[in-house]
Amino acid sequence: MTTLDDLPTPALVLDLGILKRNLARMAAAVARHPGVALRPHMKTAKSLDVAALAAPGHGPITVSTLAEARYFAAGGYRDQIYAVGVTPRKLDGIAALNAAGASVKVILDDPEVARAVAAHPGPLAALVEVDVGEGRGGAAPDSPLLAELAAALGGRLAGVMTHAGHSYAGRSAAEMARIAEAERAGVTQAAERLRAAGHAVGIVSLGSSPTVLHAERLDGVTEVRAGVYMFGDLLQMQLGVHAPEDIALTVLASVTGRKPERQAVLLDAGALALSKDRSTQAAPRDYQFGWVLGEDGAPRFGDALVVRTHQEHGEARGGEGLLALRPGELVRVAPNHACLTAAAFDRYHVVDGGREVVAVWDRVNGW
Amino acid sequence: MTTLDDLPTPALVLDLGILKRNLARMAAAVARHPGVALRPHMKTAKSLDVAALAAPGHGPITVSTLAEARYFAAGGYRDQIYAVGVTPRKLDGIAALNAAGASVKVILDDPEVARAVAAHPGPLAALVEVDVGEGRGGAAPDSPLLAELAAALGGRLAGVMTHAGHSYAGRSAAEMARIAEAERAGVTQAAERLRAAGHAVGIVSLGSSPTVLHAERLDGVTEVRAGVYMFGDLLQMQLGVHAPEDIALTVLASVTGRKPERQAVLLDAGALALSKDRSTQAAPRDYQFGWVLGEDGAPRFGDALVVRTHQEHGEARGGEGLLALRPGELVRVAPNHACLTAAAFDRYHVVDGGREVVAVWDRVNGW
Repeated sequence: MTTLDDLPTPALVLDLGILKRNLARMAAAVARHPGVALRPHMKTAKSLDVAALAAPGHGPITVSTLAEARYFAAGGYRDQIYAVGVTPRKLDGIAALNAAGASVKVILDDPEVARAVAAHPGPLAALVEVDVGEGRGGAAPDSPLLAELAAALGGRLAGVMTHAGHSYAGRSAAEMARIAEAERAGVTQAAERLRAAGHAVGIVSLGSSPTVLHAERLDGVTEVRAGVYMFGDLLQMQLGVHAPEDIALTVLASVTGRKPERQAVLLDAGALALSKDRSTQAAPRDYQFGWVLGEDGAPRFGDALVVRTHQEHGEARGGEGLLALRPGELVRVAPNHACLTAAAFDRYHVVDGGREVVAVWDRVNGW
Repeated sequence: MTTLDDLPTPALVLDLGILKRNLARMAAAVARHPGVALRPHMKTAKSLDVAALAAPGHGPITVSTLAEARYFAAGGYRDQIYAVGVTPRKLDGIAALNAAGASVKVILDDPEVARAVAAHPGPLAALVEVDVGEGRGGAAPDSPLLAELAAALGGRLAGVMTHAGHSYAGRSAAEMARIAEAERAGVTQAAERLRAAGHAVGIVSLGSSPTVLHAERLDGVTEVRAGVYMFGDLLQMQLGVHAPEDIALTVLASVTGRKPERQAVLLDAGALALSKDRSTQAAPRDYQFGWVLGEDGAPRFGDALVVRTHQEHGEARGGEGLLALRPGELVRVAPNHACLTAAAFDRYHVVDGGREVVAVWDRVNGW
C-alpha cells in the first residue's frame, strides 16, 4: 500500500471524494436547466481519468491546447471545443484529428482566421467567439463583426460561444447571477442576430464555474462550459463558489527547515510547485501563495500561509502549531489557482479521504 | 530544415550563440579568481545539452531537485550539490545515487536533519547552509548552531555553502559588489569558525549570478554557484547583470486576435507559458508579464509588453507596430524570470541567430 509517506515531495494530491462531490454539485446545477448540456473544460484537470468522471460516456468536453485535443481524442473524446482563439497554422493539426474521427471545433473572432478556416481543405468547424464583458477575445454581441465572421465561415459555422471570465471579479452570489445573466443575454443575442441574418447557429455555449453555478436561467443556451469547479481553489472559495472543504487539489510538501526567529517554517513547495499565481491578492482575503493545511488536507494550523516563495522553497508563517513541525513532517497546501498549480506536475496522487494513495492519474501538459 | 514556422506555439526558444556568450562571460568572471571553481546551477536549464556547455567534461554542478540529481547523474555528472535543504525522507534516494557512483552532496541547517544524515546507512555527505542575509535557509555565520550542525554530521561534513539571494534586490554594480563581499565574508567566517572548532571544511561555496559576476575578491572560497546567467532574463537585465541582447531564452508565440479598440493584440502565450512571475514589478522598469520582441528575438515593437495573462492568453500592448500584426504572425516574448518560464516546457527549440531550429534539447521537470 502506497501512502502519502511514500511520495516524493512536492507532490500533487487529488482527493477523489471531494472531486466526486464537486462534479455532482455541478451536474445538479446544470440539471436545473433542462436541455442544457455540460461540456466540462479539461484545462484544469488535463486528465483522462478525471474526464471519465466529469464527462461520463465520453461526453462533450472543452480543451485549451492542441496537446489536450490530441490526448483526449486518442482517449475517445470526439466532441471537443478548443476554446482558445485558433491561428491558421494550427488548423492542419485540428483537421487531421477531425479526419480521423474527432469533431474538434475551433473558436475565432478575426475575419482573416475565419477565411482560413473556410478555405482549409480538411474537415473543420468553428464557433464565433463573443465578448460579453470580459474584454479578452470575442466580438461584441451587437458588433457588425459577428455577421462578417459568420459569412466568412459559411457552412463551417458551428455556433457561438462566450466566457464571462470577469465573473472571477464578482464578490457575491447576486453579482455572479447578474454576470451570468449578462453572459446568457450576450451570447443568445449574438445567436439571434446571426440567425436573423440567415445563418444556422447550432451551438450556443457559455460558461465559467461561477456563472454556471449561479445562473438563474439559461434560455437559448445549448451548453455550458466550466473547469475549475472540479478541483476548487482559494480564489473560487473566496468568490463563494464553494466551501473551504471543497478544495480537492492540494500540494503535499515536507518541512525542510525551522526558523523560529521569524516565526516560520520552510517547505519544499515553492514557486514551481505552487505557481506564482496570486489570484487571491484582490480577493477579500489574500491567501498569499497558499493556505497551509494538515497532512490530511484539513485545516490544522489556523490561517498559516505560504508567504514567500523561491523556486523550490516556500516559507510558511502565521496560524498556530506551525512552529511545532519538525523537518520531514508533511503538510498540504491549498492553491490560489488550481489550473496553474496542477500544471507544474505530470501526475495526480489520488487519495480518498485517507493517507492511502488509491490511484496515480496522468496529465497532459505543454502544447 | 525545421524553422520557427514549423513549431507549435507557444514554444520555448533558446539562442545558442547568446547562451555561449553568456557562458563565456561567466567563465571569464570566475577566472579572475584563481583556484575558484564554477559549479553551474542547473535549476534554470535542467538540460544535459546545456550542461555539456556550462559544465564541460562533466564538471561539478548544482541541482535543485532529486529528479535533476538522478537525470544528471545518469548523464555522467557525478559531482553535484543538491542545494535545497534536504529532508530525512529524501536521503534514501540520494544515498542510492551515491552508492551507484555519484557524489551528490546535500545541504541542511537543522540538527535533526544532520543527525539523520549521520545515522543513514548509505554514503552521504552534507554542507552546512549559511545565511548571509537573504533570510531564507541557513544558520547565521556567528550562530552557535553552526558548530552543533558540524558536530552532528561528524565525518559527513563536506563543507559550508551560502546563497546571497538578496542580491536580486540590488540595483547597482556597487551594491552587487557589496553584497558579494558580504556573502564571501559570511561563508568564510563560518568555515573558519568550524575549522577553529576542529572540523575539516573542504568546500566553501557561495553564489548567485549577480554576486559571482560582481565579486571583487573570493579569498577563502573554493567554488561559486550560479544558474540564471546562462539564459538571462528581464530581471537580471534590470539588475544590470547583462544587456538586453543577452537574453538567450524567449517564448515563441502566435498572434491569435487583434483588439484595436484597446490597442492590443492577443497572443497564445499566457500564464502557463510565461509563468505568473512578476519579478520586475519592483525593478526600475516593470515589464509586466514579458517584453514582446520580433520573431527574430530582437526588439521590434519598442516597449510592447504582455500586460495581462490568462491560462492560454496573453494580451500585448504598447510600443509601435504591434497593431499591424496579423493573426498567426510570430513574436517572441522575453521572460521576467527564465527559471520559471522554462519550467512550463519539456524541451528547448535551439536556434543560432536565425530562423532555423538547429537542435531540440530536452529538460527534466518535476520532482
